[in-house]
Amino acid sequence: MTDGSNVAASADVVVVGAGLSGLTAAHRLARLGRSVVVLEAGDRVGGRTVNLDVADGVVTDGGGQWIGGLHTRVSALVEELGLSTYDTYTTGRTLYMRRGRRKAFQGTVPPLRPLAIADFAQAQYRLERMAAGVPAATPWTARKAAAWDGTTLGHWLDAHCRVRESRHLFTLCFTLMFCEDPHRVSLLKALHQIRTSGGIDFMVNTRKGAQETRITGGAQRLSTVLAEGLGDRVVLGSPVTGIEQDRAGVLVRSARRDVRCQRVIVAMTPADADRISFSPGLPTRRAALQRVWHNGTESKIFAVYDTPFWRERGLNGSALTDLPVAHYVVDNSPPDGSVGILLAFVGTAGSGPGLTWTDAVLDRPEARQAALLEDLVTLFGPEAARPVRVVEQSWVGQPWIAGCVSTRAPGVMTRYTDAVTTPVDRIHWAGTEAAPEFEGYLEGAVRAAERAVDEVRTTLSATAPRATGTATAAA
Amino acid sequence: MTDGSNVAASADVVVVGAGLSGLTAAHRLARLGRSVVVLEAGDRVGGRTVNLDVADGVVTDGGGQWIGGLHTRVSALVEELGLSTYDTYTTGRTLYMRRGRRKAFQGTVPPLRPLAIADFAQAQYRLERMAAGVPAATPWTARKAAAWDGTTLGHWLDAHCRVRESRHLFTLCFTLMFCEDPHRVSLLKALHQIRTSGGIDFMVNTRKGAQETRITGGAQRLSTVLAEGLGDRVVLGSPVTGIEQDRAGVLVRSARRDVRCQRVIVAMTPADADRISFSPGLPTRRAALQRVWHNGTESKIFAVYDTPFWRERGLNGSALTDLPVAHYVVDNSPPDGSVGILLAFVGTAGSGPGLTWTDAVLDRPEARQAALLEDLVTLFGPEAARPVRVVEQSWVGQPWIAGCVSTRAPGVMTRYTDAVTTPVDRIHWAGTEAAPEFEGYLEGAVRAAERAVDEVRTTLSATAPRATGTATAAA
Repeated sequence: MTDGSNVAASADVVVVGAGLSGLTAAHRLARLGRSVVVLEAGDRVGGRTVNLDVADGVVTDGGGQWIGGLHTRVSALVEELGLSTYDTYTTGRTLYMRRGRRKAFQGTVPPLRPLAIADFAQAQYRLERMAAGVPAATPWTARKAAAWDGTTLGHWLDAHCRVRESRHLFTLCFTLMFCEDPHRVSLLKALHQIRTSGGIDFMVNTRKGAQETRITGGAQRLSTVLAEGLGDRVVLGSPVTGIEQDRAGVLVRSARRDVRCQRVIVAMTPADADRISFSPGLPTRRAALQRVWHNGTESKIFAVYDTPFWRERGLNGSALTDLPVAHYVVDNSPPDGSVGILLAFVGTAGSGPGLTWTDAVLDRPEARQAALLEDLVTLFGPEAARPVRVVEQSWVGQPWIAGCVSTRAPGVMTRYTDAVTTPVDRIHWAGTEAAPEFEGYLEGAVRAAERAVDEVRTTLSATAPRATGTATAAA
Repeated sequence: MTDGSNVAASADVVVVGAGLSGLTAAHRLARLGRSVVVLEAGDRVGGRTVNLDVADGVVTDGGGQWIGGLHTRVSALVEELGLSTYDTYTTGRTLYMRRGRRKAFQGTVPPLRPLAIADFAQAQYRLERMAAGVPAATPWTARKAAAWDGTTLGHWLDAHCRVRESRHLFTLCFTLMFCEDPHRVSLLKALHQIRTSGGIDFMVNTRKGAQETRITGGAQRLSTVLAEGLGDRVVLGSPVTGIEQDRAGVLVRSARRDVRCQRVIVAMTPADADRISFSPGLPTRRAALQRVWHNGTESKIFAVYDTPFWRERGLNGSALTDLPVAHYVVDNSPPDGSVGILLAFVGTAGSGPGLTWTDAVLDRPEARQAALLEDLVTLFGPEAARPVRVVEQSWVGQPWIAGCVSTRAPGVMTRYTDAVTTPVDRIHWAGTEAAPEFEGYLEGAVRAAERAVDEVRTTLSATAPRATGTATAAA
């Protein structure tokens, strides 16, 4: 087991992946006096959070970015790290556009026709009631688990939202929450997400909802500050190739460092973990889960302006529409409003329902940007036609990251049950997919890390800490 | 582009993957006088066909194995290669077991209760009628494509098969055809498969159906004979890491050989193609398709006996049951009956409907085997308890193969449309997933190869053949 050419370190715990979840786990373990090494395949920390420099030092969030009132663990981490948050911009009215009619409204309820509001309410009531019957820790044991996991949320909405307008709005909201067309998402998964993420109102709302605040300096700051604290315990550009367990411990092989340890926390999406060779092989359920996993396929596109010009017209920059591209728009400007940024969420591949590029523009960046700007002009007026620049952040095609937030195709939850979280001997699983609650959110990344650390600390407690807040692995 | 450390060859065409599809393509191109190199990641040819030595030289099929009367292209290949086929063993009666009652029947129609037969017939009629409305070449343009792709075949069966017994039988049949629980398979994909694979009767039947004959010596023989003919043009153990296109051609980088060529045929499952780094990057739709793709997760388990003892009792070794493990059993003995082999198809991960191991035995090979034998004793009597050996072939967890035959989760067909087959500049796609008809069958592998060769030969026709049946790449 020690014949590797680059065995260079040992530690109590190796963390694979320097996203928010992996770094939080490493940070907590270091605070507990445990020696830890974080191995990251890519050349940066932060995983699915990333600060994009959109205007000469002005930063916006290319990945996960929001924190809500129920997100207590990430909020505690923000405070612990000395970071601060600011309110998502909501001053002024939101735009609602449907079939060519543009309306501006105040508050959280769009100006749907009364029939559509009633229809939306009944569907929400039914979904919440169904979700209440899904056990948070074991959703696959719900009475109707097999039936609900055998179809999609989109199919349910098509059948149970009788009014086209409310169906469109629901589909839009859920597409944003799952970063995926609801016609690809298991109904059971959707109900479980509702059950464990604060309910539909909390999930869709900004004020008093899951999109209430953002992190000053960008969400990736959480990871960069954590990584600074960990220092040379974080090794970048070092893809893990093998995890070999024996009776005495684990050898984690990576491009730049092989590390011998007692426990491993794999803080990656299951699909990404499938690039690692495990010895002995993973249990069947976990191995198969990694094979069938896919993440959401949505991307972000930002139009950057000299100023947030919409604000002076009493608009908050948010829009819900049935336009070709800009289905959902938010003001993603920095807290000081020094530049104006409109962010739209767009699906990766065309055809079918959901938020998608059309075939004509799919692989032509200029055409994509022109299509976006056309919609933004319709919404916010001619000034929207002249951005300083347009920036795209795609989460499909990243070399080391399978996609954006997690989703579940039908059948995954009931067939693979607890394989996302159940430890495999000395291997523990983190990453927002392994969260006990708030999966897919920054909050989920932190909760999954803390759950994995709880598992690890119990097993390590018999042995004395090997180091107290200092590195044992030299760079 | 030529700075690779191991540039050692050039060819008209590089084929990536030495499964049946890739080797057929290479064979056809060589016959056309084109120089070709086949790069294979694994240490054997055959892909998802594999000959298992189950009894001191006696071979059975661990992967794809059946050929039916409509499978004209693979049949032509069998003949061309001088191979032969033999009839799947159907002499005698098939067992049908439900709720503890075991019946033996002759022919193709199981002894369902009359009500269940009528229900089966109406569901079959409706499925065939719906399938007739799915265009073979462009299923995503079907009038109800969005709705059908937004739900699963399993969900449709649950809603439209009113009798439990016929629902069970349909679910079982489709699980076998898709190597996946129908609750994971898009309804649109299922209808398209019915439309392009000869219809439900042909798909489920042995005699006069898709399971009519097998290849003497095992289905992998197709690939080994093709590879023998290609000689040192086939390079094993050489995973392709990069495909770099420029104006003049393509550089295919692999572990043991970098090859400069005019065209590339990638004969792999889309998920496997995602391990290759493409330069320039793939179009968005193709890149995203590779990320969300998953293959079926079923496996095969074989009980090997001294003799096919069931035959002397008038049984053909086939069984359709609701037993815990052995839902579908067939006689997979060699043509001379020198040993007896019962083959059961089993799902990889437990819970939910479909063919699955229970949690209790999932990761315990001895327990799995005991559970299988218990069912076989119930079906075929006490002699079934004493096999010479039990052999398993799992298609999940293979290092270079994403799973068994193709399937489609909801949303994939409508969102990714023609990305499975559309060439990307000089890259063409083969593998049974890229078949115009009979996707998932041996026939599909051959048809996809022939389609890709047709595309390639058109583009190469302007230039004279560079070699006639001889290798240009030294080993």
